[in-house]
Order: sequence, then C-alpha cells, then structure tokens
Amino acid sequence: MDKLTHRCESDKQDLNNRLKKIEGQVRGLQKMIEEDRYCIDVLVQISAVTAGLKRVGFQLMENHTHHCVADAVKSGDGEASIDELMKVIKQFSKS
Amino acid sequence: MDKLTHRCESDKQDLNNRLKKIEGQVRGLQKMIEEDRYCIDVLVQISAVTAGLKRVGFQLMENHTHHCVADAVKSGDGEASIDELMKVIKQFSKS
Amino acid sequence: MDKLTHRCESDKQDLNNRLKKIEGQVRGLQKMIEEDRYCIDVLVQISAVTAGLKRVGFQLMENHTHHCVADAVKSGDGEASIDELMKVIKQFSKS
Amino acid sequence: MDKLTHRCESDKQDLNNRLKKIEGQVRGLQKMIEEDRYCIDVLVQISAVTAGLKRVGFQLMENHTHHCVADAVKSGDGEASIDELMKVIKQFSKS
Repeated sequence: MDKLTHRCESDKQDLNNRLKKIEGQVRGLQKMIEEDRYCIDVLVQISAVTAGLKRVGFQLMENHTHHCVADAVKSGDGEASIDELMKVIKQFSKS
Repeated sequence: MDKLTHRCESDKQDLNNRLKKIEGQVRGLQKMIEEDRYCIDVLVQISAVTAGLKRVGFQLMENHTHHCVADAVKSGDGEASIDELMKVIKQFSKS
Repeated sequence: MDKLTHRCESDKQDLNNRLKKIEGQVRGLQKMIEEDRYCIDVLVQISAVTAGLKRVGFQLMENHTHHCVADAVKSGDGEASIDELMKVIKQFSKS
Repeated sequence: MDKLTHRCESDKQDLNNRLKKIEGQVRGLQKMIEEDRYCIDVLVQISAVTAGLKRVGFQLMENHTHHCVADAVKSGDGEASIDELMKVIKQFSKS
C-alpha cells in the first residue's frame, strides 16, 4: 500500500486551492493556443504557472521537513528520511 | 488588441494535447493531497508536471524562434524581436 | 563573530578539491573568450561549471541537514534551523 | 579546427572582467570551507556565484543571437543555427 502523510484540513484546503487555480491557468493556456495568442505572451504565462507549481512544491517540502523529517530524526530514523528529502530536492531543482 | 501568432493546426493540436495531459496531472495532484498521499510522492509528481510544462514552453520557444524571430530578422526588425526572446528565456529559466 | 560549522578534514578536502577544479574551469572560460572560441562551445562549458557548483552546494546542503539540522531538531531548536534551510533551498533553486 | 566567433575588444574585456570576479569568488569559497564558515553562509555565496555565471551565459547567448544567429538567418542558414541555440538553452536552463 502507498505510504500516507496525515495533513490537517487547513493545509489540505490551502494546497488544493492553489492547485485548483493552477488547473484553471493550464486551461487558460489551452485557450491562448486556440486563439493564436502571441508566443511570448503564452511563454510569460507558462513561466507564471511553473512558478506557481514550484511554490506549491516548496510549501509541501517545508511542511514535510517540519513534520515528517523532524519526527524521523527525533525517533532515530533521520538518516533515511534526510536522504530521501535531498534526492527530491535535487530532482525538483532540475525540473 | 492583443498580438497574434498564426499556428498551423497540427502544432496547435500537439500543444493542446500536451496541455490537456498536464491539466489532468494537476487534477491528479489535488486527489493525492485529498487522499493524504506521502509528501515525497506528491513532490516527485509535481517535478514531473513542472518538467512537462517546461517542455511545452521550449516547444513554443523553438517554433517562435524558427518562425516569428527569423521572419523579423529577415525583414530588418530582428533587434527588438531578439531582445524580447532573451527576456522571456531569462524569466523562464528562473521559474 | 561569524557562525562556524566544524567539518571533518576529509569533507573539507573533498569540497576544496572540487572548488579548485571549478576555479580552473573558470580560468579556462577566460581563455576561451580570449581565443574567440565559438559562443555555443563557451555556453556548454558554462553549463558544466554551473552544474559543478550546484553539486558542491547540494553536497554541503546534505552534510548540513544530516549534521547541523538533525542536531538542532534533537535539541529542540529544529524550527529555526529548518526555516533557514528552506530559505536557502529556494534561493539556490532559482540561481 | 575549433569554430571561432569574432568578439569586439570591449565585449571580451567585459566578459573576462566578470569571469575574473567569479574566479575570485570561487577562491573565496575555498577559504570559507577552510575556515569552517557556517554552511548556510557558504550556500548563500554559492548561489551568488552560480547566478553570476548564469548572467555571463545569458550575456553570451544574447550577443550570439544578435550576431551569429541573425547573420545565419539572413544568409539562409538559420535552421541549423536556431536548433543549436535551442539545444544549449535547454541544457543551460537545467544546469
């Protein structure tokens, strides 16, 4: 079974509100393509959506480190948890 | 009025197919949050979506340079067109 | 006075060997400019140097999280240490 | 033989002044490691050096596009020149 992370309701709602906004922006990009909007304008908007997604990622990473990683360190399982975090930070930084 | 770029139908369809897939992935992210999926798994998926969006951006940038910028250069308006391209590349590279 | 981090000799030597190599590559870039080497070749080499510097940064970040951050978490000062780490990760990811 | 790009003296001097400054900063990083300076301070400095190197890269890319690429487009060899530029932009953006 997949591993789970318990998130409080306000965090979940905040993350999903941002993701819903991003979903709307991706639909907006499709409309811009259909309407033959100028490439540079579409590219500026793609940069905005990418930056928004990265902010969601950083928010998650921050929550994860403050809770899951800190708990793992306290209970003596910090090494694996930190290695896993570093791996995803490298991947994220290249995307 | 907004500036337009005429894109051929096959390019438009290709770009929008990719954007539709990305829209579905952003909805998938919301489901992952609702289902309390493990942060690291969500972060790996966010990296994949960001990388997908960047690929769409590079595709657009490539088409734009081969067509709009090259045409501008040929008709003597290259300077402004290249400055505009470089500005968006810098913005894109930081997002 | 500036804050210090005690690093073991083998870590220091490894980091500085990499930085010495990067210093040599930056001198190599100057030579490429002087010799009028092709822009694309210089850009490929700049990408290699930037990637090398980022690897040194990730190495430092990894050591820091395994040692300084984990120690802070164990002694109850994790919050500030994690906030500081996240701030530098965001800055690093945009550079 | 390697391909060459003729650069004017003032461009060469400007690029090499920036690269000399970056070389000095990389030496400064080695000193920071030797002096056991705090990891976060070293990471902030690495971000600054990386950002400086990227600025040199963007400067070169801009000159290259305004001169070499524009000339290639005008003489009918634009396709290959633009493909080469796009390839290096993608590589640069991931470094």
